[in-house]
Amino acid sequence: MTMQTLDDIRELAAQLRVDSIRCSTAAGSGHPTSSMSAADLMAVLMARHLRYDWRRPDDPANDHLIFSKGHASPLLYSMFKAAGVVSDEELMTGYRRFGSRLEGHPTPVLPWVDVATGSLGQGLPDGVGVALAGRYLDELPYRVWVLCGDSETAEGSVWEALDKAAYYRLRNLTAIVDVNRLGQRGPTELGWDLDAYAKRAEAFGCHALVIDGHDLGEIDKAFSRAAEAEQPTVILARTRKGRGFSEVEDREGWHGRPLPEQMAERAILELGGERHLLVSGPRPEGGTPRAWPDGEVNLPRYELGAKVATRLAFGQALAAVGARGHVVALDGEVDNSTHLEEFAKAHPERYFEMFIAEQQLIAAAVGLSVRGYVPFAATFAAFLSRAYDFIRMSAISQANIRLCGSHSGVEIGADGPSQMALEDLAMMRAVHGTTVLYPSDATSAAYLTEQMAERSGIVYMRTTRGAYPVLYGPDEQFPIGGAKVVRSSPDDQVTLIGGGVTVHNCLAAAGQLGGEGIRARVVDLYSVKPVDTRTLLAAADATAGRLVVAEDHYPAGGLGSAVLDAFNDAGHPVRISHLAVRDLPGSGTPAELMEAAGISAGQIARAARELLGG
Amino acid sequence: MTMQTLDDIRELAAQLRVDSIRCSTAAGSGHPTSSMSAADLMAVLMARHLRYDWRRPDDPANDHLIFSKGHASPLLYSMFKAAGVVSDEELMTGYRRFGSRLEGHPTPVLPWVDVATGSLGQGLPDGVGVALAGRYLDELPYRVWVLCGDSETAEGSVWEALDKAAYYRLRNLTAIVDVNRLGQRGPTELGWDLDAYAKRAEAFGCHALVIDGHDLGEIDKAFSRAAEAEQPTVILARTRKGRGFSEVEDREGWHGRPLPEQMAERAILELGGERHLLVSGPRPEGGTPRAWPDGEVNLPRYELGAKVATRLAFGQALAAVGARGHVVALDGEVDNSTHLEEFAKAHPERYFEMFIAEQQLIAAAVGLSVRGYVPFAATFAAFLSRAYDFIRMSAISQANIRLCGSHSGVEIGADGPSQMALEDLAMMRAVHGTTVLYPSDATSAAYLTEQMAERSGIVYMRTTRGAYPVLYGPDEQFPIGGAKVVRSSPDDQVTLIGGGVTVHNCLAAAGQLGGEGIRARVVDLYSVKPVDTRTLLAAADATAGRLVVAEDHYPAGGLGSAVLDAFNDAGHPVRISHLAVRDLPGSGTPAELMEAAGISAGQIARAARELLGG
Repeated sequence: MTMQTLDDIRELAAQLRVDSIRCSTAAGSGHPTSSMSAADLMAVLMARHLRYDWRRPDDPANDHLIFSKGHASPLLYSMFKAAGVVSDEELMTGYRRFGSRLEGHPTPVLPWVDVATGSLGQGLPDGVGVALAGRYLDELPYRVWVLCGDSETAEGSVWEALDKAAYYRLRNLTAIVDVNRLGQRGPTELGWDLDAYAKRAEAFGCHALVIDGHDLGEIDKAFSRAAEAEQPTVILARTRKGRGFSEVEDREGWHGRPLPEQMAERAILELGGERHLLVSGPRPEGGTPRAWPDGEVNLPRYELGAKVATRLAFGQALAAVGARGHVVALDGEVDNSTHLEEFAKAHPERYFEMFIAEQQLIAAAVGLSVRGYVPFAATFAAFLSRAYDFIRMSAISQANIRLCGSHSGVEIGADGPSQMALEDLAMMRAVHGTTVLYPSDATSAAYLTEQMAERSGIVYMRTTRGAYPVLYGPDEQFPIGGAKVVRSSPDDQVTLIGGGVTVHNCLAAAGQLGGEGIRARVVDLYSVKPVDTRTLLAAADATAGRLVVAEDHYPAGGLGSAVLDAFNDAGHPVRISHLAVRDLPGSGTPAELMEAAGISAGQIARAARELLGG
Repeated sequence: MTMQTLDDIRELAAQLRVDSIRCSTAAGSGHPTSSMSAADLMAVLMARHLRYDWRRPDDPANDHLIFSKGHASPLLYSMFKAAGVVSDEELMTGYRRFGSRLEGHPTPVLPWVDVATGSLGQGLPDGVGVALAGRYLDELPYRVWVLCGDSETAEGSVWEALDKAAYYRLRNLTAIVDVNRLGQRGPTELGWDLDAYAKRAEAFGCHALVIDGHDLGEIDKAFSRAAEAEQPTVILARTRKGRGFSEVEDREGWHGRPLPEQMAERAILELGGERHLLVSGPRPEGGTPRAWPDGEVNLPRYELGAKVATRLAFGQALAAVGARGHVVALDGEVDNSTHLEEFAKAHPERYFEMFIAEQQLIAAAVGLSVRGYVPFAATFAAFLSRAYDFIRMSAISQANIRLCGSHSGVEIGADGPSQMALEDLAMMRAVHGTTVLYPSDATSAAYLTEQMAERSGIVYMRTTRGAYPVLYGPDEQFPIGGAKVVRSSPDDQVTLIGGGVTVHNCLAAAGQLGGEGIRARVVDLYSVKPVDTRTLLAAADATAGRLVVAEDHYPAGGLGSAVLDAFNDAGHPVRISHLAVRDLPGSGTPAELMEAAGISAGQIARAARELLGG
């Protein structure tokens, strides 16, 4: 039906409440009361403002709706029923069940869901990314509506998002905050002090509207005003948790609890019973995204032996890969360190400065990937840890994002441990479905940068601060999942395995050992995940299982673990001599710090000698 | 000297600038211009407001000074010289050198430094923790002064901090923002729009003062007003980067660059040459911290076989451990889930609600540990990933903090993957100096909770959502670094290794196998880091190297890695049959999800049979 009157919408809102109660009671878990507070807001939105073709979720002109308060999934799924794309039966038998797409918190296994939410304070930052795409890339008039909880405004990431939304004048973005004043364990910090919220939103450059979140007319007007604003709008809606059922409304102790069956019956009665309305809200305006034509990618070529930092090669290669029109880049205010500035110079119109806000940096990448762009986000590898929850959630979103982290390991030198990534490989390897790359030279860094653009999932590249010799000719190939045997002979006695800077140390060690008549094979493990088990097995086989692994990373979860896991998974246990950073480093030169960490050429050579009984 | 006049302070400021230039030029790296912008602020602070006994950094009555903009270390170390605790020679030959305590970014290897900084947006949240200690625990009038950069206000964590500072009315906290308008790669978002900053600070409940950061009189007055305020104060100081040397002042391109030698000479000349003033600022007011007497710890006792969730045992045990007066607890607005509420009920005066702001949650723990408290912070294990950069930095701070993460793994069931910690063991194991615990039953969870209080460094406990049978009698001991052989016989054929919930699955598997005449040993790896290599070696030895490891965690970096690393480090490579969560989970019952992940009892038994050639 078309929602002509507010009374029609009132009926829809009642249906959304009833269905939120029904599905969560049937599931025996879920958040009905957090759904009920926002039901009026969402009823008005879907009936009159969300321009969305439910049968064509891939229509680029569709508006976007993100539930940042993902625990209100009963409400979202009830909207899907009202839209006619999820049946009442699926809602009642699928919600929170094994194998069902109606998961406890929404994920993009549902075609109408852009991003996974459920870790609070992430939907709004993701929405900023979608809105960036709309305004600056697609150049389409779609709007991005984000339903937020009030509790989640305690997350700093919400303020990173509003700050960037205002900075980029994302008038296509509307945050709808369901201020029901009750968190999980009790009242929120600000309660119903709507003005305090409004002051914050305005101070961050947004247009703020305070409304009664149960007054359909006020809601309707607010959404209209949001659509006309010149800045992102934050609608602060005063609501009551559990609204519509007197036994739980505005009461503590009902967060995340389904109503017991008899109570649910009383609630449904109070709400006027079950309904099965179908809504057809406004349609998208149509239009096609701006075309960003693809050009030819001409990767930089580096001379063998020239000293070039992998971070520079990444930047130069990305500038070249930017010939592909869907490639975009995001900086964490360090583009002269990561060398992302090379992309910025070449493609300023597809470059987004996110300043020092790594959570928003990753979320913007996720949002851009929702619209099919190929985002590369870069900062110091150490600071990607700031966004680990966002990276973790990106995997659940099955987002396609590319991350580059520079300044890895003790190699960075004088800046000291706060700037050294020493856990990043572990952190990235642990996440589901990631690819982890760690090139040792400029040629491989450039090649892999191009590969990243083609790879789906979360693809991470670790780059090194210092300049080291180019090891590979410009026509060499570096398939993801491969490794390079950089040095070998028919009668190698020991294998030295490195990644990034330690490949150079391994080569120097092999040189030292060669001087003593010891023949060492050197393996460049540029693909840390997936790892090249075949090359590792062959090396172990050729060198009687004598393996040294040297990594500029703490010992747990990095290169050594990747090697041990590979051999274990292949059913071929080995012992590795594992050189890694085992003490807390300080400042110093790269050489001093690598020596102190025990990953220098001399120490690699010594480990090799020990394996040979020397 | 005592700084009687502003002219004296002007001389001091010039000295701080000159020394910042000298030490960074000597080191060949560092951030002189970011130091020069804040030199006037810090000169006034140390001369007239910072009540600090430089010879007794451990005096509990001392004020606290935190450089949240840790890259301004040349300024901080120049202040140490002016205070007479670091010699000019140490400054000139030590800064950023290997083995020196004057690292590129400050760390607590220096007795006057509370916390490591250098990852931006962390010093202020840490300062909130120290100020909480001052106001609510020590009950001493010391003040906490935090020097912030303007760029770092883009970090959401800064707003988490100001929000909590206002919520807790931390009038003893002053943030001094050095608004020099230039970031690393160019102008900041807000430039010199000091009023925009002030609006934000005020909207977050703080007292804001806008001043000229080079007007000594204004600075002096602002610090006095801050000391008198009823709310935390944010001083927004308009400054010029590189202030005092015309060739770089307010110019782009000079971030993080030492002046070349000849330029440094000209700068020193322009600043009036070298000085070697010694300052004695105000002394602390004296006083002793409130005594929180220790009582007797009576851990809860659980009946064998009773079903008790480890998260509940943690909460109950922590309430008991709270008899020790220095134990404090911090919640991320989920205390009815983590069961931290048990502590809240028993010790409300040592309980801090940080709401949904995990970065601030960890930072507050770090700040409380600065003052010698024994903080326990708890949230869902998945959401600790939100604070990974803070945890990483805590290790550099060598802070003593205890973290508990509940709701680990697919075992949580219907809520789905956003709420499941599946990377937490990898993330925590990777950090330097951490302890990682994962109890399988209530008795061990309670015992280990008490152990956590006594352990230094970062100690993490992973707890489980569901209730499982108590496996151990109340007098059993669980030393950190140990493991329990839960089931064994003289002729075991295979070892099943689990942690947490999978210990129960291993026991059920052993039961199944027993029915088939296969004798399986079961190891409860409750201490994941450090791990009990001896018990593992003995098990491998007893069962001919047949080992199954089952974990409710993604495969990289968790229990399986801990086991592989232990055998590798012991020089005894083994192959493990490694059962872990290899696909992205959805919703379902715990049993369904563990089955889908391949870590159920039946699947563990099958893996054991396969090892036995069955």
